[in-house]
Amino acid sequence: MTTADDGAAVTRIAVAQVPLRVGEPAANRAAAEAAIAEAAEAGARLVVLPELVNSGYVFSGAEEAGSLAEPADGPTVTAWARLARAHDLVIVGGFCELAGGVLRNSQVMVDATGTRAVYRKAHLWHDEQDVFTPGDAPPPVVDTPIGRIGMMVCYDLEFPEWVRSVGLAGADILAVSTNWPASPVPAGERPVLVAYAQIAAAANRMFVAVADRCAAERGVDWVRGTSLIGPNGYPLAGPVLRDGPAVLVADCDLARARDKATGPRNDVHRDRRTDLYSCPTI
Amino acid sequence: MTTADDGAAVTRIAVAQVPLRVGEPAANRAAAEAAIAEAAEAGARLVVLPELVNSGYVFSGAEEAGSLAEPADGPTVTAWARLARAHDLVIVGGFCELAGGVLRNSQVMVDATGTRAVYRKAHLWHDEQDVFTPGDAPPPVVDTPIGRIGMMVCYDLEFPEWVRSVGLAGADILAVSTNWPASPVPAGERPVLVAYAQIAAAANRMFVAVADRCAAERGVDWVRGTSLIGPNGYPLAGPVLRDGPAVLVADCDLARARDKATGPRNDVHRDRRTDLYSCPTI
Repeated sequence: MTTADDGAAVTRIAVAQVPLRVGEPAANRAAAEAAIAEAAEAGARLVVLPELVNSGYVFSGAEEAGSLAEPADGPTVTAWARLARAHDLVIVGGFCELAGGVLRNSQVMVDATGTRAVYRKAHLWHDEQDVFTPGDAPPPVVDTPIGRIGMMVCYDLEFPEWVRSVGLAGADILAVSTNWPASPVPAGERPVLVAYAQIAAAANRMFVAVADRCAAERGVDWVRGTSLIGPNGYPLAGPVLRDGPAVLVADCDLARARDKATGPRNDVHRDRRTDLYSCPTI
Repeated sequence: MTTADDGAAVTRIAVAQVPLRVGEPAANRAAAEAAIAEAAEAGARLVVLPELVNSGYVFSGAEEAGSLAEPADGPTVTAWARLARAHDLVIVGGFCELAGGVLRNSQVMVDATGTRAVYRKAHLWHDEQDVFTPGDAPPPVVDTPIGRIGMMVCYDLEFPEWVRSVGLAGADILAVSTNWPASPVPAGERPVLVAYAQIAAAANRMFVAVADRCAAERGVDWVRGTSLIGPNGYPLAGPVLRDGPAVLVADCDLARARDKATGPRNDVHRDRRTDLYSCPTI
């Protein structure tokens, strides 16, 4: 934590767009570790990495995914924990996990003390349904030395119920690990998936850090929407929207996310009409 | 309803950006009626108008608002009902309502048969809290000859719980009447309030029609975000983003909103993890 010109305490946050290749875990781990090193060098205290960093995404099927999976104390997470300790970082990233005999599309948070949380993606996209067992627990919000960090993977972000639960649980920043498959975008428009991140931020007055991947894989290309969104819903960095690795950083006064006011008389959480919603707590 | 080149049945929808002036109900009604006539002339079957069309927005206080309010069978709604009958239109617009001795920030739907629904804004912005009694009922979704139309006013749209309730109730299109006060927008960015409309649409695979106002009033300027968003979250028309009246139209195959699929194996409503949300129905 450092101090900005205006006296606010700021934390440098990094989001890493990493080129991944399905079936090449050693190269993928090296690419992610290079991004972590770059972020640490730039002074970041939190680094967010994409989804399924070790394995890549476009599996031929469950068998290939299984051959690439590893436990939460496997080489990928172990290396991240080592780097987190070496650089006093929080690292949040996705990995293909083998846990209890099933495959999970998982996301881990490590800091200098080790593993803080493992989250399993609850909303599965497309053929992930042939490979992964969906998560059965809410997205964690972890109290760390730099602030409260929420976790979520890719398609999860498209469910406002899920996003709201993280907001209401008090996240200062939501770390989203993703592999966003590209779909047609009208000329002049920003990919709508980035707008999901913007509204997740604005509707909950929290920061949102999205790490997307790059490098087309078996005919699938990516949004490359790596971005860091402020609590007002506007980007502080990114979206990248171009192919190739990128480590974006921005200095965030995470305490801003503790104030949910949008004006002198309004507050995005307090103004909820919980008396009228079918369920007050979502 | 007409038929598009590809054979789909399409309905022409209009969103009207209307210049309003606080305290000039006759001029405001005339401006709205001119917009309705323009939309009808253009072949629209649904016309969405802004919030508080009769009264304007920036009241000096409750007394001024009270002097401008009218019942749901007052001159504003009566005129709209007459125009709806004359042109076989559905009209959705906002008005300053006196009902049961209190003021409401209301929205009415009229069609050729008369008044179909009156909705009272449930989430009040800023000094509206000094003037209006907030609504205490969910946003309606009304089955009309052109499709199922949901209703909502301005700040309501910023609450994903409220938007989801309309989506789950089966709205094909959400009609949003608004007076969006302008706030600073970073260079090159679209106002984030428009992104709320985009994500309301995308997250529920429904159309969203936003009618904003124009004409600065007592020092308050407006987003002028009048727009029509398709179920994929991208604009079909607008946002206007410039001062001055505008009637935008787009031909919408409203039946597209009955299909919530986002891919061969995904569906924005069916994929909800209601087993994990604190409340399955929001």
